[in-house]
Amino acid sequence: MWTIWGINMPAQTYLCRMKKAGILGGGQLGRMLLQAAANYPVETYLMESDVHSPAAHLCHHFTCGDIRSRDAVYAFGKQLDTLTIEIENVNLEALEQLEAEGVCIIPNTNALRIIQNKITQKQFYLENEIPSGHFVVTQNQSELNQHLGMLPAVHKLGSGGYDGRGVQIINDATEIELGFDQPAVLEKKINIHKEIALMVAVSKTMEAVLYPPVEMVFDSRLNLLTHQICPAVLNQKTLWKAEAIALKAVKALNSPGLFAVEMFVDPEEQVWINEIAPRVHNSGHHTIEAHYSSQFDMLWRIMLDMPLGNTKYIMPSAMINLVGSENESGVADFQGLDDVMKMENAFVHIYGKAETRPGRKMGHVTVISNDKQDLYHKVNLIRHNLLVKAKK
Amino acid sequence: MWTIWGINMPAQTYLCRMKKAGILGGGQLGRMLLQAAANYPVETYLMESDVHSPAAHLCHHFTCGDIRSRDAVYAFGKQLDTLTIEIENVNLEALEQLEAEGVCIIPNTNALRIIQNKITQKQFYLENEIPSGHFVVTQNQSELNQHLGMLPAVHKLGSGGYDGRGVQIINDATEIELGFDQPAVLEKKINIHKEIALMVAVSKTMEAVLYPPVEMVFDSRLNLLTHQICPAVLNQKTLWKAEAIALKAVKALNSPGLFAVEMFVDPEEQVWINEIAPRVHNSGHHTIEAHYSSQFDMLWRIMLDMPLGNTKYIMPSAMINLVGSENESGVADFQGLDDVMKMENAFVHIYGKAETRPGRKMGHVTVISNDKQDLYHKVNLIRHNLLVKAKK
Repeated sequence: MWTIWGINMPAQTYLCRMKKAGILGGGQLGRMLLQAAANYPVETYLMESDVHSPAAHLCHHFTCGDIRSRDAVYAFGKQLDTLTIEIENVNLEALEQLEAEGVCIIPNTNALRIIQNKITQKQFYLENEIPSGHFVVTQNQSELNQHLGMLPAVHKLGSGGYDGRGVQIINDATEIELGFDQPAVLEKKINIHKEIALMVAVSKTMEAVLYPPVEMVFDSRLNLLTHQICPAVLNQKTLWKAEAIALKAVKALNSPGLFAVEMFVDPEEQVWINEIAPRVHNSGHHTIEAHYSSQFDMLWRIMLDMPLGNTKYIMPSAMINLVGSENESGVADFQGLDDVMKMENAFVHIYGKAETRPGRKMGHVTVISNDKQDLYHKVNLIRHNLLVKAKK
Repeated sequence: MWTIWGINMPAQTYLCRMKKAGILGGGQLGRMLLQAAANYPVETYLMESDVHSPAAHLCHHFTCGDIRSRDAVYAFGKQLDTLTIEIENVNLEALEQLEAEGVCIIPNTNALRIIQNKITQKQFYLENEIPSGHFVVTQNQSELNQHLGMLPAVHKLGSGGYDGRGVQIINDATEIELGFDQPAVLEKKINIHKEIALMVAVSKTMEAVLYPPVEMVFDSRLNLLTHQICPAVLNQKTLWKAEAIALKAVKALNSPGLFAVEMFVDPEEQVWINEIAPRVHNSGHHTIEAHYSSQFDMLWRIMLDMPLGNTKYIMPSAMINLVGSENESGVADFQGLDDVMKMENAFVHIYGKAETRPGRKMGHVTVISNDKQDLYHKVNLIRHNLLVKAKK
């Protein structure tokens, strides 16, 4: 939006300029990344097609563009030292070209290619002997009939799925018509005792650190995280297993960056990887207030070649997503917000999205406390009393 | 920089738009205010004459203008619902006109007028029976000769002083030539045992909450805060006295806002007000990580008519200012930064100023710990090993 000091400086001081770091995508993840960026000397760039997106106004340089367009991503990235994503659905070819030309892409394009497609992601787990549900690849809906023995199973679109879209549960033969008619993964349903997520941060020198795992609770209908507790309550052996699996998977990706590893714990205390997000993630929002180095702080440390941060928590925490209520579309109205703002240990984040829609992520609240009962109590209060409706 | 959704919406939803909130000044205080603003639904405006200032890129709408100009401040404020300051040296007449026309000025112009001038500020303490050092008003340097009995004393310029400028210590008659030749306050030197600061937040409904006091340690030469510890170590009676005095002074100002009350404790445990800043303040930076509601969060709560936040600390803290080293001017080089970034309980804030100068505030570091010895140890490590030099 304006020329920053570094750009036009004489050659001898040019090397001293701030790093130019870009983000593809301007949603709430970009917003929180840019809040954290202002703690460090960095010149920020953001590309997003919606100029009213939550992050658009918080960068030094905003580019209105399509993150799936090869030309747009290449032109955007070419001016940068380093570039990251807040959503996987970006143009990979452009990033590969940029990486070849010396722009530091975090995560690297090799990791992103593996993860971007659910089929290659599942094959990656298999090849690296990382426990993950048994699966077959299907090219179209009718192929599902050859795998009735797998049911009940989860059908996952190879590419293009996001936030609950592109995932379908198929319980029996009568539900095959729900399946995708494009390349997809059919994964045998795991008997889920707990869902946990564990974030791993990897520096450019391949040093890795782990955050404590969080226990996630989902809305099964919308397939959206409703709330989570950190640290997850796991017995010691299960914790070690989860840490070992997450670390092995992320190390096999062989990329710097921040990775959210979602896992299932079954009733026999076996741990299975569900999927990996190679970026800052909803399951890490609590780290802003509850941990020494937040996931957003950590990603900047990686991108700016600074030492990795401390992943330990300051206090146990709960995080509640604020999603648009059913049958409510229009200008957002956060009903019950004042009561949550009055809670002595709650931290409110509203993403600045003007319009609410059913299931849309509109904000989140983090509660920190050394008293687990207090966390559970506040989770219930917030979940039932803070509602995102549309203004009447 | 672009039109935000609310502005062009049909009349029936216009009332549901986000509040338009402005800040006069774009330094590090504005930067941290805007970081905190992104937790809430608010449309931010900032006016500042330097387009490269630390806060300039973090608002929705930036206006390049002089905050001391009546016309510029009026035109800027006229489009807003509410307006605050990050420095006292702003055009008061424009703010008075805006206030009369319905813009909510925080702090109000009555409080700002009292504080903006050191003479009216001292008279305010006297009239309200708030303990503050004995003083006389001097119109020019030669008048100092009539007050030799006051020496040693501090001579403070009535208006225009900031950050150590406009304050002069006069020890005896031979130093009268150091005095100001403009309207000023001559204040008898108080025997200082401790310097403390206590922040008070006041809502628009005049509800007030107090933060725990911090103990401040100054560089006596630059008159700049080098570091501080929170909470200050005070005996119970002195704490009560400090709280009562700070609250009485702020209530007498009769304005919503955030107020940093700087006080002296003398060897007899008497408490004296030094001065009040009617805004977010250097002495409150530790609240970002160490307290439930930071000073920046608190000011947004006040401006956006939300409930006041929790002033309690999560952990005791220390805050170290990073100021430009002596004899170093040029592109900033933070020597020793990596070692501080590795500390498990340190939080680094670099303000994004390209050029360092001796004494210039370039950043700060907050350390949190339940172990006071750890705080003192880290303060010493950081003060002696993290230096802001100029690139060679």
